[in-house]
Amino acid sequence: MEQVLSDNLVISIDAMGGDNSPRVVIEGLVLAAKKNPDIRFLLFGDENRVNSILKEYPELSKVCEVRNSPEVVSNEDKPSHVIRNRNTSMYMAIDAVRKGEAQAVVSAGNTGALMAISKLVLKTIQKIHRPAIVSIMPHRNGKYVMLDLGANTECDSLNLAEFALMGEILARHALNLEKPRVALLNIGAEEMKGREEIRQAAQMIRNSKMNMNFIGYIEPHEIAEGKADVIVSDGFTGNIALKSIEGTAKLVVRMLKDAVKKSFLAKLGMPFMLGVLLRVKKTMDPRLYNGAMFVGLNGLSVKSHGGTDALGYSVAVNNAARLVRQNFVNSIRSEVEKIDLDELSQEIIYDSY
Amino acid sequence: MEQVLSDNLVISIDAMGGDNSPRVVIEGLVLAAKKNPDIRFLLFGDENRVNSILKEYPELSKVCEVRNSPEVVSNEDKPSHVIRNRNTSMYMAIDAVRKGEAQAVVSAGNTGALMAISKLVLKTIQKIHRPAIVSIMPHRNGKYVMLDLGANTECDSLNLAEFALMGEILARHALNLEKPRVALLNIGAEEMKGREEIRQAAQMIRNSKMNMNFIGYIEPHEIAEGKADVIVSDGFTGNIALKSIEGTAKLVVRMLKDAVKKSFLAKLGMPFMLGVLLRVKKTMDPRLYNGAMFVGLNGLSVKSHGGTDALGYSVAVNNAARLVRQNFVNSIRSEVEKIDLDELSQEIIYDSY
Repeated sequence: MEQVLSDNLVISIDAMGGDNSPRVVIEGLVLAAKKNPDIRFLLFGDENRVNSILKEYPELSKVCEVRNSPEVVSNEDKPSHVIRNRNTSMYMAIDAVRKGEAQAVVSAGNTGALMAISKLVLKTIQKIHRPAIVSIMPHRNGKYVMLDLGANTECDSLNLAEFALMGEILARHALNLEKPRVALLNIGAEEMKGREEIRQAAQMIRNSKMNMNFIGYIEPHEIAEGKADVIVSDGFTGNIALKSIEGTAKLVVRMLKDAVKKSFLAKLGMPFMLGVLLRVKKTMDPRLYNGAMFVGLNGLSVKSHGGTDALGYSVAVNNAARLVRQNFVNSIRSEVEKIDLDELSQEIIYDSY
Repeated sequence: MEQVLSDNLVISIDAMGGDNSPRVVIEGLVLAAKKNPDIRFLLFGDENRVNSILKEYPELSKVCEVRNSPEVVSNEDKPSHVIRNRNTSMYMAIDAVRKGEAQAVVSAGNTGALMAISKLVLKTIQKIHRPAIVSIMPHRNGKYVMLDLGANTECDSLNLAEFALMGEILARHALNLEKPRVALLNIGAEEMKGREEIRQAAQMIRNSKMNMNFIGYIEPHEIAEGKADVIVSDGFTGNIALKSIEGTAKLVVRMLKDAVKKSFLAKLGMPFMLGVLLRVKKTMDPRLYNGAMFVGLNGLSVKSHGGTDALGYSVAVNNAARLVRQNFVNSIRSEVEKIDLDELSQEIIYDSY
């Protein structure tokens, strides 16, 4: 994979997005800079506030450039509204990628706004119809990539096939897998398996020139088993699955805690178990999986969780840096060039009548 | 609530459905009969095999009547095929409910087949457009009802409103709640919250004469918190959420087990923790939540998990018995009579243009 020259590696930062910004953001950059000594950061936000915190970190300051942005996108702002305001830290940070001043942008702000501005400013890659939100998640003995997680509430078969393509490339780049196993999320209803658009997408992927290790359908309870490396679905279904998984993991851990509190014997046993519990907790630590990537755009937008801490924020930045180094966006561009998904889509739809 | 006379309480049993049938089925009935001394069972299956096992349980035999059914629905059989064969244990067991010989049917066989035959034979309640699959599940401090879990891959707003109605009645009957909190499963995408049909269903429920404690939308990670007693969605989404929840619960428990095995210290601590772990395991025990109910039909069909054991099977039978005693099917009939959902649906659709 082509390596971007290190003096070109610039990441644009929306310093005002998320809770406790810009402090958490800057403390996250401290950690990210230690891991990536070759990155420079372009920070957008309230210059005075950003600089006053940055002063505490002289090492980081050396690789940062701060630009003043007079306004901030709030969590309540509607996407349709924020796309018209070019003076927000979020807009300006994304625009720096369009201008070529940075190769990726990271924001912990409002997801809908970040997606809307990213689409408007960076534009969708030619031949890709819809960008998607992707996350990297833990399964029993590794990690997997899942998309779309909420950008597209309704999808047709062509959208799903494109997500499969982009997810596969992401898994190769971010998970270091040579032949990631790609699966469509579906339910195992007898007779007709799940929804029409999913069956059509499966057919489209199989008929395409994508040289992909497509393993068919996966049901949600098989995700945790590690049966696939890339899980593809529409944004509504993906979001439902993601939040069900997160909610249940939290519930089980909390039930254990509640039960231990009520048991004298268990409290006695805690010192023995602490190591194990910490290890499991660490594997599931949401901070280590922070950073949802918007893929399918001419430039990389990464959304950090708004409530994360410095460690979580740094993970999002590290993800962005890794994908920039591996020339992720260009990989998508050149792979879609090779495959005419549109034509394929026409064939499939014709087939099904 | 009207009590059905005990000498009328008959449950029809597909003795051949599920793994290790008819043995597991019969052993499940032994447990169910102990809990419900007033029930009688009508068993359909291979007369010789059923009777030879039944002989081991003379107490149960007294409340059982066995009828021979020459054929069995297999897991591979397609619903479109099985509905034409009236000689299977599943068909005959369901038909006993239509004839009034039993008030409910329990089967551990093929879900798609059970739904197809139940719809064909029992027919959907007048004014209900689609039956749904419902389960009772555990949350942090209680139980909730969730539907549809897979009967309807695509649903419109009217279907969802009807599911809300039926789910609410089920929660009152099965969970003993006076005013169950009803919520529509949705995602919290900014700007437009989730899918169009869900927004329309919310409007329809609010405008209806349903005297329901409707609390709006719920996101999947809030389910485990116990924020609602009835969770309503289309069958595809419900199935995705259900299996994500089940898969994750299993994963977390297994990760804990794996970690304990690898730690000498943790093994030392195990005797202290055993009570706690068993308690948590018991709360999450899928056998205690066995028995998905098909609601919206003229008669009650209950689907037991095919791989459950005698305890799990007895839970499905107990659920069926409780709902029959509480006259559940008639409650749905009389409540839909009161509310003209069809008319309401016309208004909503008109509104949205």
